Amino acid sequence: MATAESNDLSSLRDSLRRFAAERDWEQFHSLRNLAASISIESGELLERFQWTDPASSDLTDEEIQAIRYEIADVLLYLVRLADKLDIDLVTAGHEKIALNADKYPVDRSRGSSRKYTEL
Amino acid sequence: MATAESNDLSSLRDSLRRFAAERDWEQFHSLRNLAASISIESGELLERFQWTDPASSDLTDEEIQAIRYEIADVLLYLVRLADKLDIDLVTAGHEKIALNADKYPVDRSRGSSRKYTEL
Amino acid sequence: MATAESNDLSSLRDSLRRFAAERDWEQFHSLRNLAASISIESGELLERFQWTDPASSDLTDEEIQAIRYEIADVLLYLVRLADKLDIDLVTAGHEKIALNADKYPVDRSRGSSRKYTEL
Amino acid sequence: MATAESNDLSSLRDSLRRFAAERDWEQFHSLRNLAASISIESGELLERFQWTDPASSDLTDEEIQAIRYEIADVLLYLVRLADKLDIDLVTAGHEKIALNADKYPVDRSRGSSRKYTEL
Repeated sequence: MATAESNDLSSLRDSLRRFAAERDWEQFHSLRNLAASISIESGELLERFQWTDPASSDLTDEEIQAIRYEIADVLLYLVRLADKLDIDLVTAGHEKIALNADKYPVDRSRGSSRKYTEL
Repeated sequence: MATAESNDLSSLRDSLRRFAAERDWEQFHSLRNLAASISIESGELLERFQWTDPASSDLTDEEIQAIRYEIADVLLYLVRLADKLDIDLVTAGHEKIALNADKYPVDRSRGSSRKYTEL
Repeated sequence: MATAESNDLSSLRDSLRRFAAERDWEQFHSLRNLAASISIESGELLERFQWTDPASSDLTDEEIQAIRYEIADVLLYLVRLADKLDIDLVTAGHEKIALNADKYPVDRSRGSSRKYTEL
Repeated sequence: MATAESNDLSSLRDSLRRFAAERDWEQFHSLRNLAASISIESGELLERFQWTDPASSDLTDEEIQAIRYEIADVLLYLVRLADKLDIDLVTAGHEKIALNADKYPVDRSRGSSRKYTEL
């Protein structure tokens, strides 16, 4: 975990492959089951902010740890789903940022939360 | 995108910081707004599998591309939220895998989709 | 609960108003908080079907009861949100069915799960 | 829609049964597909509040209509799922309110958004 190469998602992908193989869980990891799991875990993450919108500095270490694990749950299923579809997450992310830059030109979207269809 | 170091999430984090700064969107990126956005994008991803659970090989290139961008949308907000909380996603992911390994020992969870509380 | 008039949603709406007023919870029931709560509770409902798609007859009484309460959680926040917006849920539901009937004409949608944009 | 008896959910349930039967859609309406659909539609509802938390009075008629239809979408799938499980939604709702009243006694929960496990 502390080595330089572990800073990329392929280490997570490999750990998750081993984890599933050891438990014979590949059978449960269909595309749809993984997509449903991402959504379920996202709901648990959102529950941490159900009634309030704290600043980072308002959160206790315990709260941040709990949020951190909810974030990790979403990430793990996302990495698993990407693996099943042979998608490179980082490349896909950069492509999507480039598409968003086209949809939200700086001059028209500056300071606005409106959707691109309304700009 | 083609360089070796871009294979890690810090390149996405940095691009997203620039993207938000250029548009003066930091004001919208509260913890809660980002958590809500992750959940919303997860729903759009799940919509791709609303009625069926296709194998990867059943999907057209166009369908995979659409799914790929939905996955990227979830990832980008996840990277943004982690950045706001100063969370290293890959490290958090490895920690969560270790916790899950404790909750789901191989001998008791093998071939079962039951929750750890029921094992 | 057993009376004829309780079979409509206005009895739930009124109970929820009282519940919130007694606890001074109106302050938390903003439109957005209620929408987020609907989404969070929907995730908990979906969690009951994370890995399997059981037939009703496969479920134990205990499982049905658990699902029943998750469904109720979604409903209660939905009734609350509709109340805040002065929306009659049943009328809105019938209107939406009529709109869906236009989007999904019987002859073109019969036996197909495709979205109306692809019919 | 204008008659007295239409004010209850059984009219929606019956319309949805007819709608599905005419289109031969019962095959798609498994418990899990309906639960996933509720979650997907909840995400679309939440998207209306992705960045802001408007007061009802801030919304245009057009915005309220759009929100109204998103609420109806969630409701329709909820009615369908309850029908499949032979659940009376209004009765389940009242039961859940009674359970919540036990979990959140007025004196301890007044003015607080804390979860019952933390009260």
